[in-house]
Amino acid sequence: MAKKIYFTPGPSDIYFTVEEHLKNALKEQIPAISHRSKRFQEIYAEAESNLRTLFGLPNDFHLAFTASATEVWERLIQNCVEKESFHFVNGSFSQRFYEIAGELGRTAKMAKADYGSYTPIGEVAIPASAELISVTQNETSTGVAFPQNEIEQLKAAYPNALIAVDFVSSAPVSNIDFSKIDTAYLSVQKCFGLPAGLGVWFYNDRCLERAKALQSKGQVIGSYHSLLKLHEGGLKKQTPETPNVLFIYLLGKVAGDMLSKGLDRIRIEAEYKATVLYTYFENHPLFAPFVKDAGARSKTVIVAETGQHTAALIDFLKTRGMVVGSGYGPFKDSHIRVANFPTHSKESIELLVDTIDTFKQ
Amino acid sequence: MAKKIYFTPGPSDIYFTVEEHLKNALKEQIPAISHRSKRFQEIYAEAESNLRTLFGLPNDFHLAFTASATEVWERLIQNCVEKESFHFVNGSFSQRFYEIAGELGRTAKMAKADYGSYTPIGEVAIPASAELISVTQNETSTGVAFPQNEIEQLKAAYPNALIAVDFVSSAPVSNIDFSKIDTAYLSVQKCFGLPAGLGVWFYNDRCLERAKALQSKGQVIGSYHSLLKLHEGGLKKQTPETPNVLFIYLLGKVAGDMLSKGLDRIRIEAEYKATVLYTYFENHPLFAPFVKDAGARSKTVIVAETGQHTAALIDFLKTRGMVVGSGYGPFKDSHIRVANFPTHSKESIELLVDTIDTFKQ
Repeated sequence: MAKKIYFTPGPSDIYFTVEEHLKNALKEQIPAISHRSKRFQEIYAEAESNLRTLFGLPNDFHLAFTASATEVWERLIQNCVEKESFHFVNGSFSQRFYEIAGELGRTAKMAKADYGSYTPIGEVAIPASAELISVTQNETSTGVAFPQNEIEQLKAAYPNALIAVDFVSSAPVSNIDFSKIDTAYLSVQKCFGLPAGLGVWFYNDRCLERAKALQSKGQVIGSYHSLLKLHEGGLKKQTPETPNVLFIYLLGKVAGDMLSKGLDRIRIEAEYKATVLYTYFENHPLFAPFVKDAGARSKTVIVAETGQHTAALIDFLKTRGMVVGSGYGPFKDSHIRVANFPTHSKESIELLVDTIDTFKQ
Repeated sequence: MAKKIYFTPGPSDIYFTVEEHLKNALKEQIPAISHRSKRFQEIYAEAESNLRTLFGLPNDFHLAFTASATEVWERLIQNCVEKESFHFVNGSFSQRFYEIAGELGRTAKMAKADYGSYTPIGEVAIPASAELISVTQNETSTGVAFPQNEIEQLKAAYPNALIAVDFVSSAPVSNIDFSKIDTAYLSVQKCFGLPAGLGVWFYNDRCLERAKALQSKGQVIGSYHSLLKLHEGGLKKQTPETPNVLFIYLLGKVAGDMLSKGLDRIRIEAEYKATVLYTYFENHPLFAPFVKDAGARSKTVIVAETGQHTAALIDFLKTRGMVVGSGYGPFKDSHIRVANFPTHSKESIELLVDTIDTFKQ
């Protein structure tokens, strides 16, 4: 059976180098090595170093490996929030983080935007009691990208709060100024094109200090994956538990490939492919980009209103070897979502557009 | 470079069918599929069904996928213990679970055995206030197997407590009577011979009831991976977060392979190979089994006292293509640990023994 092209917004098509790295990993018997061995420390160090370079991480930032970005939501609240967090909610994932804070017994407050848009920072008075402010840079459910210049206003306006950025489905294509935030996180099945099962958590010294302060107050900050335990492990290029060694290996390799290719080039390509998609949907007689504000359109998750044609369009594309995502939550039957990740070639995006163009409703 | 044989007690050599399943997974594009798709539900159902059959799981038992067995420690305490747990500690891993209960703010009590032995159930008066009693069926750090008839006494003696069994490094070789326990957990990089990064948590209705009761009392039982959320997901053959789809696929396949081979045969082979190893160490002029009580010797993790020869022996074996584990914790420089998992053939165990026999101190 011919392989399909997956444009689903994560999991999605694997990065084009992953199969080769997987073969090498088996040849090197990576799945068999001990996570307390020198070889594992080298793998950890390679992944860490490549990610540091790729993201231009400042010196006061660190990173840790978790099982998912969902896990980071829980760990962030446990380690960095004693009582109250504040969430910019504009889709299902930002909403879920808000809910998790509540499930963990914190007071969670939010500014909720209409689906397909975001709430400008200046329009909200965030309570001074908010210890953490969460912004979703790229809402995978709606395709809204929170503009970078908006996010960058937060730190100056709320210097006592930790600024947390969800860039799960845009990193490293999105350009984040780490000096304007305190923590960010991603999962590897999006732009890195790996199989799902690993999250990466970037955090700075302020987050560490917060976790220490909460712990010394007697607050439970978790156990094996408290930020302090993760950090302590990371200093030794180790993890507290037996981790997903294989995927850490693969992530290091793919991050290395992206460095070789050049992040600038990856970003220019993403921009080009996004323009192809948005321009196409803008000019389509039946379909339209869901996000009306062109300045808030995600470059990596393109959401189109496809209304009553949605199911037929998805089926039509599937029979032609292309899998796009359905809409999320309330838009399941009226949107399609198209991933524009680094592994999706210009040619594949053009093929997708050309194929949609032959769709007769 | 010729491949080595890894006898390390997990991660260890991958199960001999894993490479083939991995190839098929790539061919089927398993890493690209959505975790909300019908295809994923089939993968989940296959893994669940094969594990249910392999373990002979009673109807009141369920299973959930976590990132590791370490995660299960945390989730068990959060969901099943309000105030107090009790732990049979006889090595580093049972000790770590005890510590995690404390880190999560519970009163953790323990009966501590000397390394290399266990505390018989009848010798301990467990407080009636203990809500959960933890036994490590197979202590990976010391090679002690807690005898099954001991574990089976717990439920009758302490009917109000939940009985939790760590069989991380012995399942499914060890024979557990699920009607005598309430929960058990494993990680896939041991006997299942998969890459690390997935845990399996078995729990019964009593555990679920406990989690519900704690939640209705206002206790925080976690968020995305509370037992209730995991269970709710499982009923739909889904997980709360984007899981490690690839490893769940591989686990289902390997469990299926073990069913085809027959668990009886796997157990008989384990018994045979363990006998080869223990007999060899018993008769060795310099080395000896660490566990003196033959009835408490693990069949899957064989620990030998190798004293001052340890480092030289490990190096000697490595140059001959065999990797054994070093001792754990205080025994790092005086023990070796040898995994005897289903992937380790009789021939490979015999080769190991023959090679050790040529070691000149």
